[in-house]
Amino acid sequence: MNILVLNCGSSSLKFQIIETDLDLIENDADRRLASGLLERVVGNALITLQVEGQAKIRETAPLRDHKAAIDYVLRWIVSPNSNINHIKSLADIHAVGHRVVHGGENFTKSVLIDENVIEQIEDNIELAPLHNPANLKGINGARELLGTGVPQVAVFDTAFHSTMPETSYLYALPYQMYRRHRVRRYGFHGTSHRYVAYRYRQLLGIEREKTNIITLHLGNGCSACAIKNGDSLDTSMGLTPMEGLVMGTRSGDVDPSILEFIHLKEGIGMRDIDTMLNKQSGLLGISGLTNDMRELLAEEQEKNDRRARLAIDIFCMRAKKYIGSYLAEMGGADSIVFTGGIGENSAAIRERICKGLEWMGLTIDKEKNGALFGGKEGEISTSDSRLKAFVIPTNEEMLIARDTVRTIKNVPRRW
Amino acid sequence: MNILVLNCGSSSLKFQIIETDLDLIENDADRRLASGLLERVVGNALITLQVEGQAKIRETAPLRDHKAAIDYVLRWIVSPNSNINHIKSLADIHAVGHRVVHGGENFTKSVLIDENVIEQIEDNIELAPLHNPANLKGINGARELLGTGVPQVAVFDTAFHSTMPETSYLYALPYQMYRRHRVRRYGFHGTSHRYVAYRYRQLLGIEREKTNIITLHLGNGCSACAIKNGDSLDTSMGLTPMEGLVMGTRSGDVDPSILEFIHLKEGIGMRDIDTMLNKQSGLLGISGLTNDMRELLAEEQEKNDRRARLAIDIFCMRAKKYIGSYLAEMGGADSIVFTGGIGENSAAIRERICKGLEWMGLTIDKEKNGALFGGKEGEISTSDSRLKAFVIPTNEEMLIARDTVRTIKNVPRRW
Repeated sequence: MNILVLNCGSSSLKFQIIETDLDLIENDADRRLASGLLERVVGNALITLQVEGQAKIRETAPLRDHKAAIDYVLRWIVSPNSNINHIKSLADIHAVGHRVVHGGENFTKSVLIDENVIEQIEDNIELAPLHNPANLKGINGARELLGTGVPQVAVFDTAFHSTMPETSYLYALPYQMYRRHRVRRYGFHGTSHRYVAYRYRQLLGIEREKTNIITLHLGNGCSACAIKNGDSLDTSMGLTPMEGLVMGTRSGDVDPSILEFIHLKEGIGMRDIDTMLNKQSGLLGISGLTNDMRELLAEEQEKNDRRARLAIDIFCMRAKKYIGSYLAEMGGADSIVFTGGIGENSAAIRERICKGLEWMGLTIDKEKNGALFGGKEGEISTSDSRLKAFVIPTNEEMLIARDTVRTIKNVPRRW
Repeated sequence: MNILVLNCGSSSLKFQIIETDLDLIENDADRRLASGLLERVVGNALITLQVEGQAKIRETAPLRDHKAAIDYVLRWIVSPNSNINHIKSLADIHAVGHRVVHGGENFTKSVLIDENVIEQIEDNIELAPLHNPANLKGINGARELLGTGVPQVAVFDTAFHSTMPETSYLYALPYQMYRRHRVRRYGFHGTSHRYVAYRYRQLLGIEREKTNIITLHLGNGCSACAIKNGDSLDTSMGLTPMEGLVMGTRSGDVDPSILEFIHLKEGIGMRDIDTMLNKQSGLLGISGLTNDMRELLAEEQEKNDRRARLAIDIFCMRAKKYIGSYLAEMGGADSIVFTGGIGENSAAIRERICKGLEWMGLTIDKEKNGALFGGKEGEISTSDSRLKAFVIPTNEEMLIARDTVRTIKNVPRRW
């Protein structure tokens, strides 16, 4: 089957076409046929398109909404000059898999989309006011353009974390905040943590139930996940993707009383403070320079910039502390796994995060670590480390495509 | 010297009279002569007074403010029927030591109080709006009643943590929040963490610079401190005493976006949410029963109460996670030290916190653990534990009295 994977952000659309099916999954023989990114949707969009194995195409086009963006993508897919393997007409798109950010407590696995599912995703808008509406635009746009005859599947960022016990997901707030408004930890990046855990098992040839690892997804958004016996036991993002690690522009953990303090000192309201913590904090906030880790590393090395160093140090220390806290919570683990743009590509950051964890049994092998970037996977710890470390590139789109097939064919989810 | 130690809360006054001096400190021969607690100050106060070695006296009296409360205490101290050793008149009170909650960045050690110091404590009111004003009432009341001829010393809850590096004390917020408003981690309970670290060194006969421990102060307020090479490296409370561990009525860590979410759902403002997080959360919030750990343990055991168990489990898990994160941050430690009302008295809580830390090298000796309560100190880990655990009762008043003497005599602070 050819699956169109859609990931709609508030002003962007990412897509991939993946050829997959149950037998292909079995043999790890499924593959990407094409991919693309449309930025600045609603406006003069910046568009990057690529057929696998061919050069990237860059163009611009005025797009008025997500539906227009999907329409643009579909026209390109079936146009003769794109010439994608196996795709001649829209009939060759057999299903659509959507990334949906917030499944709330309703969704613990991927589901076939129908009116009822759409309503429930709508109900979760209040939990993800920026993300779920964009995801819904993608779902509705694709349904209108492809017709309801093409099955569509929702794959939730939160679903993998639905195995968390109460001790992980409840905050120490009045219990009625949970009863009344479902205030709890949900966690995000679940598709990524789950994919990486799957790849780890495959690499090491171990059973799902024996997978005891800590996965660190370090990109512009960052989260850590404690995976015990194959299930998510705890994760650093919470009710929203704000909590936890230091991110590109998000603060992660702060004293909750800071919000009132800033309110009193700066005279700004809750909404503006939330924006400050989401958009002007993290690496960008500390450094005052950029949210891009590569640039910060360059500033530190080339200009010895004090605040660039500080931002990187605080970023690494926070990640290190989460590793320690999850090791305590899990009663030990076998491996730390790095993924995401920073986790997959920056040997320097991986080394700084793991420095000082020798007491826990982890020593990084500098040579192995330095060799892994740009999509390569493998171990980066010394052979005598009691706690291992790995780099495993994530592939959320592949997992979304696979879940789409399995959901349509009603085959129990395989990890 | 006879030191009056005063600890003024918003509606309470605690005091002790301690006989101490440089030579007595040297020989650990200083001792408490009397102590007392006045609750519901401003109103019909509940008063408990005790001369060391005698029965407690309980009485009530209408007290209109903190000054009146101090006046009440001073009258009792010098009254013939109290008959405190060495105290015949007010002239036998040689100095006053005050607990002051927030020293901000101004105070890194205990100081002799003068007009300038009072002004600086006033400047820090915005950082501790509930605590510093009460502390100031105590200082001003004692100065008026005893005269400025009696030296008074301020001992700050934050001072011990002034050794924290930037990577511990800076949040991942826009840097100007620190520059402009000094938004940073300060940490509290410093006098307790410092006292316990001192006692630990004394018990084990090790040098200050070789003290690598994690101290857990678990009372109605709770905090953890990573002490590396004798200095505070990190601590769980932050800008305010809200952050970190689960406490009696405080939430500790939550997703910072929860505040806006609750604001939208409940229609209450920032001040009310802050109150909810401070007064209606923590053990009380989860259990819906009480903020008292003893009662929760009884509810759990006798009635198998689900939410009592949940509150205890979340409390213990949070503490366990902080131990893990500090072990990672410190690159390992020698011991965990429990103190505070819960930490000193509840073997069950200590055991639950340490359960699962065997991977880190810590195993609790059930018998030793069960034997330590009611002011007893000692080790609670098995002899082959790589990471040890201890119970050490705190004594902030003794440290305040000692700092008072050392500050007056201008003797460098000894740890």
